[in-house]
Amino acid sequence: MNKIKRTPIVILNFKTYLESTGKNALKLAVASQLVAEETGVNMVVAPQSPDIYPISNEITIPVFAQHIDAINAGGHTGSTLLECVNEAGAVGSLINHSENRMKLADMDMVVKKTIEKQMVSVLCTNNIETSAAAATLNPDFVAIEPPELIGSGIPVSKAEPEIVEGTVDIIHEINPKTSILCGAGISTGEDMKAALDLGAQGVLLASGIILAKDPKDALLNLVSKI
Amino acid sequence: MNKIKRTPIVILNFKTYLESTGKNALKLAVASQLVAEETGVNMVVAPQSPDIYPISNEITIPVFAQHIDAINAGGHTGSTLLECVNEAGAVGSLINHSENRMKLADMDMVVKKTIEKQMVSVLCTNNIETSAAAATLNPDFVAIEPPELIGSGIPVSKAEPEIVEGTVDIIHEINPKTSILCGAGISTGEDMKAALDLGAQGVLLASGIILAKDPKDALLNLVSKI
Amino acid sequence: MNKIKRTPIVILNFKTYLESTGKNALKLAVASQLVAEETGVNMVVAPQSPDIYPISNEITIPVFAQHIDAINAGGHTGSTLLECVNEAGAVGSLINHSENRMKLADMDMVVKKTIEKQMVSVLCTNNIETSAAAATLNPDFVAIEPPELIGSGIPVSKAEPEIVEGTVDIIHEINPKTSILCGAGISTGEDMKAALDLGAQGVLLASGIILAKDPKDALLNLVSKI
Amino acid sequence: MNKIKRTPIVILNFKTYLESTGKNALKLAVASQLVAEETGVNMVVAPQSPDIYPISNEITIPVFAQHIDAINAGGHTGSTLLECVNEAGAVGSLINHSENRMKLADMDMVVKKTIEKQMVSVLCTNNIETSAAAATLNPDFVAIEPPELIGSGIPVSKAEPEIVEGTVDIIHEINPKTSILCGAGISTGEDMKAALDLGAQGVLLASGIILAKDPKDALLNLVSKI
Repeated sequence: MNKIKRTPIVILNFKTYLESTGKNALKLAVASQLVAEETGVNMVVAPQSPDIYPISNEITIPVFAQHIDAINAGGHTGSTLLECVNEAGAVGSLINHSENRMKLADMDMVVKKTIEKQMVSVLCTNNIETSAAAATLNPDFVAIEPPELIGSGIPVSKAEPEIVEGTVDIIHEINPKTSILCGAGISTGEDMKAALDLGAQGVLLASGIILAKDPKDALLNLVSKI
Repeated sequence: MNKIKRTPIVILNFKTYLESTGKNALKLAVASQLVAEETGVNMVVAPQSPDIYPISNEITIPVFAQHIDAINAGGHTGSTLLECVNEAGAVGSLINHSENRMKLADMDMVVKKTIEKQMVSVLCTNNIETSAAAATLNPDFVAIEPPELIGSGIPVSKAEPEIVEGTVDIIHEINPKTSILCGAGISTGEDMKAALDLGAQGVLLASGIILAKDPKDALLNLVSKI
Repeated sequence: MNKIKRTPIVILNFKTYLESTGKNALKLAVASQLVAEETGVNMVVAPQSPDIYPISNEITIPVFAQHIDAINAGGHTGSTLLECVNEAGAVGSLINHSENRMKLADMDMVVKKTIEKQMVSVLCTNNIETSAAAATLNPDFVAIEPPELIGSGIPVSKAEPEIVEGTVDIIHEINPKTSILCGAGISTGEDMKAALDLGAQGVLLASGIILAKDPKDALLNLVSKI
Repeated sequence: MNKIKRTPIVILNFKTYLESTGKNALKLAVASQLVAEETGVNMVVAPQSPDIYPISNEITIPVFAQHIDAINAGGHTGSTLLECVNEAGAVGSLINHSENRMKLADMDMVVKKTIEKQMVSVLCTNNIETSAAAATLNPDFVAIEPPELIGSGIPVSKAEPEIVEGTVDIIHEINPKTSILCGAGISTGEDMKAALDLGAQGVLLASGIILAKDPKDALLNLVSKI
């Protein structure tokens, strides 16, 4: 697990774009792996649930789920079971992404299940206060993403540096074992450098890369200034 | 698509049991295919989302998703996109299962997407009134499952035959193109025969088979009296 | 109950604007009553839950709830119980408003409870298909409101008359006892007249009146061409 | 506000029982006030939303809401707006009750709104970890209620004292300004005394009192050993 958590880390959330679905998802995962190999950066891909299996069987960089439901195995229909994404190849998961917010008690349950199954947890939050709350649950990462900047192309590391710094400070105080990622609007090498300079240990990103003309080039640019 | 909709049809909802996750899911799917080959019954399996790809690549009987979210491709995280389960191999989907109820407007959107993509839709309902409402949305199947009988081992076809008959009657009136399935508590050959005798064209089932000592035997028993 | 359902009917959804909260809600309710008295139109007000009691005690025109949860009396916290809004003075309710969509099974349960308690039900829908589905549940009214026009100032009766006509036609076929209201973007006398001409028996409206400089004048204008 | 927060505090959640709806709610509120007057205990009642106004106008002890939605004033239908329950007479609110769990970001928003409007916040939690998380949001109270004991008649203060103690310890560490309440299964004087002995500053209770043969007697018994 320590290898998976190596920083600086770049987590690419595939979301549900057609550009990152099925065969396109596989291509994007392969491109991410090439960037990891060429640059030494710890690249992680988070495809949609049905794409975890084929991608995990094709690449060697870590594959994360985008979401895990707060359920145990049993009589549930259409829910995302940790054991199932794990067996399909996911070694970690985003939790509580801004586009899939969870109840506090459910976040707690899912983080505990990830710890038990030795999966990496990335708890997404929207501001300094909820980042502090998230850190008490003992996740591996907290990814701070002001919702108003998600998909905006305006990098949080530049637009609201005080949110990143404040998150870094309070999480260091509450739970020094939790690492901080920075999300929302990140797409260039400068954005990522700014995030690391503010104390983040990596980035969580999506549309800025997925919808780029050449996602591999965009990733190479992203990690060029580390 | 007509071949997929051939009746009598038996849809096996894998839910999120460990007995129907990952490698176990594949085994159950293979057993289902053997039963289809040996008996000529139209067997369909509905595994969890991450298991759709590996199962679809191994078997030739139809694979359905358990749920599809009411979204179009784009910036969503952790949601189930029709295009993604479809490319992974799903040719149909359960919709509005009792363990994953949907808003009416969302059901309408998902049924329309299945029609557009030529996927088979199975709209689950809880009583005669909601079955009538579901039929107006023009799904391929309505699966009537009184929630109190789901997982109970008490077959709806025996405990509440008037609900099945009432559903058959009203759907014939409102939308004769929609076929009726019968769910909840179904597990034996007698249960299934009773369902067909009441006018249903097939069954939707889960725990009665999945948790059986020998699921293949249980399936053979289920279809023995048709 | 027949008196409450008299058409043409104008239902004013107070939503959660400060302009229609607390004392402001009471003022708006009194103004609505004056319009009813001056014009003979069947005016109904739907204030927020905490305002139902004081408003019901002050005016004589019908007061509706904005929403009712699909629960029976018992151990629920913060939910809206039909029996409670009813005892507070509500004689009907909006159900499944676009800003509070419900699951199909829940809509069915709430409509049945309104029938049992002789409260008037107004089922909100977004298109012709869901209007047909809603009508099978046997509500007193279906209020068709294309979500993209809500709060837009663009009246559905002019922008998408075919949706209103299609809804009128299909509901007449499926359930002639259900009356049709027209919502979304309605605010002037011409909008309302257009709605009635298309076969609607009334309108459901909100911001166009609530946020008007003089809500009473706006209401008088609204009903001026009937 | 300090007066409202005086401890030991007893908060009676009326939930949605018929025994605590409408006229019955008013009776229960009056009985609670009598107990407050006779014993000096800080009694708070939390009735359903439509009952806040009539109860606030009849009694002088504090009235809380059972829930507040994470919205600002505007175009929402059927949601519970802080400004509205406040104007109706509520001076505080339960937040995130086990029967109405909220997303973390929403809890944060609602607590901030209560602070801004000088309302008292009672954040309900299910275990030590989520209590710690809740305390970082700076509520006035955290009410720890293991969900499996709610409505059980088995008092948390006896069945799982280590959960109460653990919550008291971690909240003292994370946010000493937050007081701790103890809920779930509390109904007798011994239960309440045990809770206070474990470091809680009050109790949150419901069915044990509401469904008692004589709620006033039950309340008198509850506070008899403080």
